Amino acid sequence: MAAYIVSRRLSSGSGTPPSQLVGALRYAACWRSYSTAFREERDTFGPILVPSDKLWGAQTQRSLQNFDIGGERERMPEPIVRAFGILKKCAAKVNMEYGLDPSIGKAIMQASQEVAEGKLNDHFPLVIWQTGSGTQSNMNANEVIANRAAEILGRKHGEKFVHPNDHVNRSQSSNDTFPTVMHIAAAMETNSRLLPSLGNLHTSLHSKSIEFKDIVKIGRTHTQDATPLTLGQEFSGYCTQVKYGIDRVNCTLPRMYQLAQGGTAVGTGLNTKKGFDVKIAAAVAEETSLPFVTAENKFEALAAHDAFVETSGALNTVAASLMKIANDIRFLGSGPRCGLGELILPENEPGSSIMPGKVNPTQCEALTMVCARVMGNHVAVTVGGSNGHFELNVFKPMIASGLLQSLRLLGDASSSFDKNCVQGIQANKERISKLLHESLMLITSLNPKIGYDNAAAVAKKAHKEGSTLKEAALKLGVLTSEEFDNLVVPEKMIGPSD
Amino acid sequence: MAAYIVSRRLSSGSGTPPSQLVGALRYAACWRSYSTAFREERDTFGPILVPSDKLWGAQTQRSLQNFDIGGERERMPEPIVRAFGILKKCAAKVNMEYGLDPSIGKAIMQASQEVAEGKLNDHFPLVIWQTGSGTQSNMNANEVIANRAAEILGRKHGEKFVHPNDHVNRSQSSNDTFPTVMHIAAAMETNSRLLPSLGNLHTSLHSKSIEFKDIVKIGRTHTQDATPLTLGQEFSGYCTQVKYGIDRVNCTLPRMYQLAQGGTAVGTGLNTKKGFDVKIAAAVAEETSLPFVTAENKFEALAAHDAFVETSGALNTVAASLMKIANDIRFLGSGPRCGLGELILPENEPGSSIMPGKVNPTQCEALTMVCARVMGNHVAVTVGGSNGHFELNVFKPMIASGLLQSLRLLGDASSSFDKNCVQGIQANKERISKLLHESLMLITSLNPKIGYDNAAAVAKKAHKEGSTLKEAALKLGVLTSEEFDNLVVPEKMIGPSD
Amino acid sequence: MAAYIVSRRLSSGSGTPPSQLVGALRYAACWRSYSTAFREERDTFGPILVPSDKLWGAQTQRSLQNFDIGGERERMPEPIVRAFGILKKCAAKVNMEYGLDPSIGKAIMQASQEVAEGKLNDHFPLVIWQTGSGTQSNMNANEVIANRAAEILGRKHGEKFVHPNDHVNRSQSSNDTFPTVMHIAAAMETNSRLLPSLGNLHTSLHSKSIEFKDIVKIGRTHTQDATPLTLGQEFSGYCTQVKYGIDRVNCTLPRMYQLAQGGTAVGTGLNTKKGFDVKIAAAVAEETSLPFVTAENKFEALAAHDAFVETSGALNTVAASLMKIANDIRFLGSGPRCGLGELILPENEPGSSIMPGKVNPTQCEALTMVCARVMGNHVAVTVGGSNGHFELNVFKPMIASGLLQSLRLLGDASSSFDKNCVQGIQANKERISKLLHESLMLITSLNPKIGYDNAAAVAKKAHKEGSTLKEAALKLGVLTSEEFDNLVVPEKMIGPSD
Amino acid sequence: MAAYIVSRRLSSGSGTPPSQLVGALRYAACWRSYSTAFREERDTFGPILVPSDKLWGAQTQRSLQNFDIGGERERMPEPIVRAFGILKKCAAKVNMEYGLDPSIGKAIMQASQEVAEGKLNDHFPLVIWQTGSGTQSNMNANEVIANRAAEILGRKHGEKFVHPNDHVNRSQSSNDTFPTVMHIAAAMETNSRLLPSLGNLHTSLHSKSIEFKDIVKIGRTHTQDATPLTLGQEFSGYCTQVKYGIDRVNCTLPRMYQLAQGGTAVGTGLNTKKGFDVKIAAAVAEETSLPFVTAENKFEALAAHDAFVETSGALNTVAASLMKIANDIRFLGSGPRCGLGELILPENEPGSSIMPGKVNPTQCEALTMVCARVMGNHVAVTVGGSNGHFELNVFKPMIASGLLQSLRLLGDASSSFDKNCVQGIQANKERISKLLHESLMLITSLNPKIGYDNAAAVAKKAHKEGSTLKEAALKLGVLTSEEFDNLVVPEKMIGPSD
Repeated sequence: MAAYIVSRRLSSGSGTPPSQLVGALRYAACWRSYSTAFREERDTFGPILVPSDKLWGAQTQRSLQNFDIGGERERMPEPIVRAFGILKKCAAKVNMEYGLDPSIGKAIMQASQEVAEGKLNDHFPLVIWQTGSGTQSNMNANEVIANRAAEILGRKHGEKFVHPNDHVNRSQSSNDTFPTVMHIAAAMETNSRLLPSLGNLHTSLHSKSIEFKDIVKIGRTHTQDATPLTLGQEFSGYCTQVKYGIDRVNCTLPRMYQLAQGGTAVGTGLNTKKGFDVKIAAAVAEETSLPFVTAENKFEALAAHDAFVETSGALNTVAASLMKIANDIRFLGSGPRCGLGELILPENEPGSSIMPGKVNPTQCEALTMVCARVMGNHVAVTVGGSNGHFELNVFKPMIASGLLQSLRLLGDASSSFDKNCVQGIQANKERISKLLHESLMLITSLNPKIGYDNAAAVAKKAHKEGSTLKEAALKLGVLTSEEFDNLVVPEKMIGPSD
Repeated sequence: MAAYIVSRRLSSGSGTPPSQLVGALRYAACWRSYSTAFREERDTFGPILVPSDKLWGAQTQRSLQNFDIGGERERMPEPIVRAFGILKKCAAKVNMEYGLDPSIGKAIMQASQEVAEGKLNDHFPLVIWQTGSGTQSNMNANEVIANRAAEILGRKHGEKFVHPNDHVNRSQSSNDTFPTVMHIAAAMETNSRLLPSLGNLHTSLHSKSIEFKDIVKIGRTHTQDATPLTLGQEFSGYCTQVKYGIDRVNCTLPRMYQLAQGGTAVGTGLNTKKGFDVKIAAAVAEETSLPFVTAENKFEALAAHDAFVETSGALNTVAASLMKIANDIRFLGSGPRCGLGELILPENEPGSSIMPGKVNPTQCEALTMVCARVMGNHVAVTVGGSNGHFELNVFKPMIASGLLQSLRLLGDASSSFDKNCVQGIQANKERISKLLHESLMLITSLNPKIGYDNAAAVAKKAHKEGSTLKEAALKLGVLTSEEFDNLVVPEKMIGPSD
Repeated sequence: MAAYIVSRRLSSGSGTPPSQLVGALRYAACWRSYSTAFREERDTFGPILVPSDKLWGAQTQRSLQNFDIGGERERMPEPIVRAFGILKKCAAKVNMEYGLDPSIGKAIMQASQEVAEGKLNDHFPLVIWQTGSGTQSNMNANEVIANRAAEILGRKHGEKFVHPNDHVNRSQSSNDTFPTVMHIAAAMETNSRLLPSLGNLHTSLHSKSIEFKDIVKIGRTHTQDATPLTLGQEFSGYCTQVKYGIDRVNCTLPRMYQLAQGGTAVGTGLNTKKGFDVKIAAAVAEETSLPFVTAENKFEALAAHDAFVETSGALNTVAASLMKIANDIRFLGSGPRCGLGELILPENEPGSSIMPGKVNPTQCEALTMVCARVMGNHVAVTVGGSNGHFELNVFKPMIASGLLQSLRLLGDASSSFDKNCVQGIQANKERISKLLHESLMLITSLNPKIGYDNAAAVAKKAHKEGSTLKEAALKLGVLTSEEFDNLVVPEKMIGPSD
Repeated sequence: MAAYIVSRRLSSGSGTPPSQLVGALRYAACWRSYSTAFREERDTFGPILVPSDKLWGAQTQRSLQNFDIGGERERMPEPIVRAFGILKKCAAKVNMEYGLDPSIGKAIMQASQEVAEGKLNDHFPLVIWQTGSGTQSNMNANEVIANRAAEILGRKHGEKFVHPNDHVNRSQSSNDTFPTVMHIAAAMETNSRLLPSLGNLHTSLHSKSIEFKDIVKIGRTHTQDATPLTLGQEFSGYCTQVKYGIDRVNCTLPRMYQLAQGGTAVGTGLNTKKGFDVKIAAAVAEETSLPFVTAENKFEALAAHDAFVETSGALNTVAASLMKIANDIRFLGSGPRCGLGELILPENEPGSSIMPGKVNPTQCEALTMVCARVMGNHVAVTVGGSNGHFELNVFKPMIASGLLQSLRLLGDASSSFDKNCVQGIQANKERISKLLHESLMLITSLNPKIGYDNAAAVAKKAHKEGSTLKEAALKLGVLTSEEFDNLVVPEKMIGPSD
């Protein structure tokens, strides 16, 4: 409680260094040890001590002390930090066209580039659970880039030779930068991580559907025995699901490529010059090689994150698809002796600490856990997306982190599943054939010949007596042995007839 | 308990009329009274009594008795029933090309047309909570159409002159008909109900954004006072949200227009003739004037309902948008004296049973409740969509009803909100102007002139002293009265500068 | 569009009968045909035409016209209507203690009793998607009861001899009556429908766990073969899940038994007399034989519906449990020849329209569909519950209908699953025994004797060579035939050792 | 791709050190740099290289290579790692009673204690997205503890003097240890983090409800002006919500205190001695000072995680409550001049990078973002919880991490909200009073005197004319000035009358 009182006093800006030291140490204690050296930074709230070896400034430091929520793992996702690097670089570039001092502009560009490359990640300590506009992370970027740019120009930290607001954040507001970096980060992760992974998974499933094209197996509907199909056909269904998943994600990109930048505080673009919005979108497009454009309507771009809810919805659909595929594969690979046993899954590790020799469908498990998580993230993103008020949605960091986690996990898990499972799947042909020929459901091929009711009677008789279909059919006298053999041919049951 | 024993015995097909009567009466008691006359129908399970005045047959009757879940309001949605009419009509038409007796085929077409028109709704008593493939509703359609076609041909019910399976269901399986009617129903509801309603809402919001284009008002971010914008700009954000919502729904249609028909039991098309799938999709397209095609991959079309999860995701995004819009409108319309009071909402009814004179934003409330429901339906559809196994997803009726409810409610509620609220919204210009000019946030326009830190000081001073910005600026001596008046002009703050 | 203009004019209370007729007919057209006779009713908005054969009044009629959302199936759930009957009866009773004219009070009580018994259901036409406080349904109840009470007293409809507000709604506000009927309805459905159904299901599962207590079977973890257990043990897990589910639901009841009545408009109890809240809760408790009490804090009771979110959470847990149980049962019952085949599920109906002889786990399917729906409803209820503002949550009808649907569906589906599936489950002992003895996982019993690494080697060898464990163990020389037979005894593997 | 081929070969155990080096380096490259020294560890799959400075063994190393999903932030939550320390310590203690060599047992206890204290966190590198049973994390704990215990006993790593399976994991299976540590971790986080934070928040809200007990303010329902209440009453509603939230969480603990330990692989307790389960639960209870007991049914405890779904449901309810509270507080604190402005929220930081002087409700924003996340986590946990199969649920790490994140975030955010917002809230009495006396809704107090219809007329007139209620009442002649003043007294409107 004492610590709290101290940090409260500290927040009021009364500037007593000893108590600030305690506040900083309190922080240090919960996460990791910083050097005990501090420098003073200052904002409109007054002075505050900041660790000497860090580039951040007063506002970042205040956020650290005011939002002690979740610990280090809850830090703003790295793709957001990198996207800030990209955006601030582009902003400096465009601002120079509008009169920003070129020496300062270039230093900002260089510092921003370091942020974009992840070199200054340690200077972005803030958590997701801060102000809902992401203002504090925007200021974190402004402060780090300003201090680093000052360094580049041979100036000291904290003296604001390069000013976080007046220079780095020039013509910008947190309210347009944060949605802009959200879109940059999500579009980049989609293009560089998720889509390639899904593409590879699709390729592997397609290969398997060709590899298995001649293996006729029993179908299963309602989990019960049904008419036959080929294992290749079964995999072609999975393959199609992933293909459409890629289509679904692609469908959402046009709205993700729209950038809010230029809307400033409420969408009007106050404090920017005409054309700034278009230029900065063009600069980001050039920097990222992705077709970003300025948002058609900046009011929508700040106040809503429907584009995130939409993309999250596409990922939710992909998750539903992958859940189905992974479930099927683990059931088809179940056994080794008491399950369905049609697939042989690759062995990647010992399966159990108590049951020797057991190998588990662990890649399916990791993937389905990811799918469940993605479904949950989708609800979080939806709740956040629906709760904007007036000119601003203030669930931005939560929405961003939810979607970015979904993108990353789906991408990585698809890739892992592809490499460590799908590519190594083998068909257990012997088992598949055994099950197929024991099945009663081949009876369906007799429907057109002897009618539904007779066919049902044959199947029921075989089931009851534990006999083959043929034996039952002959006993009931509905057709001859030769007729049966000509009609009941699984290989003829895997498509329409001529 | 006695009743249950009776109905169990009944189900086993032992055919003792008195106990069946009890079973039927039990049913009648829970829902509504039927005539006490019964006829006998029969399926592979044996005979069963069916109300004489109903066209359904044995399998429908069994389902009624086996799935006493949820009561009458949980019946299969009407668009599914009507889609069965369309599908069975088209199937008969195509089957005639493949050899179905034309007199029977035409009678089936005529009976199916009646189903499509909703004339036989009373003969579709089954609930959603039945077999997960929708088999029983497919059989309900087959039985009703067979009996009605028999009637048309002058035959008796139950004698199967027109056979539910061999004729009406010819070349079909529940496993392909049910996903087909799901797609037909959803595509029709989307096109005839949701999209027109969203289109009208978009038009009204667009009109309002033009009507209000010159009304400058205070902006609000973090629910706090912010820089100004026009009321028209604010509405343009809503308008864009709805426009993109329409785009999002449209994006999902290509996959919704794919029909599973022709896949039969497991997707192979067993028991169909080559070309049947293409012909029937063409027939449905012609019948509905919508661009249906045969599904590219029938295995996917039976085993997954990703298209439904996807479309539900689009509706979830629309719901998030509408939640935001309706929330804003009710807050902007809050008052009459102690709220924000910027909008005057139409009065449609007395608001409270105890507080006379109070008028509530009831259309916003109905709409936001619908939005919450749509978000919930989306989770249900997702859970169902992810839980398919092998060749069949058996959450079909739940998935179908969830999406159809979302389509209907979003369509109707958007329409009601449009007509009974948006179209009648008026701006309270006096109040808007008063708030605008009291605001401290006009200070932002001084940033470029006097710098961020000075501007902050002015605003803080005015806030502390309850004075106007001008008074504070003059006291602090940062600019002259004339400068202030030239710089702080809300009308100049609603866009970028030249 | 013409129709709409008419109904708008109508709403403004200008009272031109012909146009009202059109409005009423418009309504009639969408739902069902009413008699063409109308009478005039009147509220603070002016006069409006109402169908002569209906007891509702002006406010109900306006709501019908203003909220044309979702159609007839979206009407306010019947348990809410009945609970209004109970509440209004109790209110009249208590109001008589506080001075309400006894003849009017008694007539109200009689009319309310009819509502409570469902006799006047046809006079409650309003949908869920109305004002979020449920005001219009409260007024519907007030109007119907007032008109019916007037009838009882020999007076005419519409003349307000018994006044809907001053008499029937006396000392009440929609803001306290609606949450009160929500709690009454939910508590009654929980006690009369859900808990008995879960109790019966628990009893059946418990019986099965005893019936199957000596059947040793292979266990499955990761869907893979594992060490043995008895089928009775497996069912005891299900049984425990349901038992805890009942506990979970019971845990929520103390907060559900708290009634908002007496809080009136904002929770203060304005316009009630001291003690009214306690008396009315006592009256409801007596009427329903459930331990209702007055809410400890009326502000919470109006502004939040955490009790509904909480109970919905308990149902969500029950749904997760039942999903697991039903999934297991359908997989254990999969086959008849190509699945796991350990359970024989009762045949209740023909399974497929194309595959004769096939019997599907349809009760599992209905139940798991219900579970998915309940999970979706839970999200809807949560979203609604989190979005209250200030003194009132205005997602009440959505929240109420969501929870009531979950209660009904879970209750009915559990009951159907119990009667039509669980009670009839038989063990396929032959199949179970065959699988058990083929399994490699009996190896685990050798761990303590020969060590983990040796045991693993035996299992791997048997797996590779397709041999039995014994053959592999002897070949590897890790133990003798006799030792093996003494150690590998499935019956000894189903519990800890002494 | 080359790297992948290498690591595949590596997994097959062919043991070529150079390629393993590449595999390990690949890993090192993606996360952080390890020393380049490696030692060889070995499991049933063969040898594998492990970083020399890490205590983990072969199975951990394989998991690192096989599950490259999500990066470092997705590591198994620390409370799980610590709970493994507690459990393994207790297991060693109990195993010594059953014959484990005391010198080995004590070394295990000492090593486990270090894990419990978080001292060996760096040796737990595995991510959540691994096998769904958590086996690999169990083996990680076994390996680290075995190697550390060996160190303590002066032995080398990797030679298995203390064996990870035979000694550390003795009488255990991943299938019972992982659910056990889930329950230990969740119960500890609930007791040490969430409940104290909610308790403090409750205390602060309660203090505020007393502090504000005499401040009469306008109520708001439907966001519209309503009858008055005190600010203290309004806060008492929030206070009650949090109080019930604490009750709800406490209600779930009895099932959380049940430990699966002793169930081993499938719940039967195979390879344990009788009484082991009870003893180990007692040991954990003693170690943690929490009332853990052995699970009543071990089959349920392994195959389902209903206790987690249940607790997550309680947190979901708490989230709904806190969302409402934080939303109210930000709206009541909106302004400073154009919002409701009834509350003055503490200023903790500068609010905007472009709008000087603006202070935002950032603590409300952090909290509501957390609430949305908790709602999303709840869906993920529910989906995972419903998807168990047979004897094991294999969504364990996802379920555990979801609930633990919710517990941590809700606890931390409640605490931050309490300290940095609630405690510092002040009432803006002047503003509150102004709004109250302008309101039309005081009219309600006239209902009992002049009747509902007259009261409505007065309110409507005042509204229309912009006059006070009194002026309107006098004009309409429904009462005298004196009567009005006696009747319309806000202070008399905040409770029932005598």
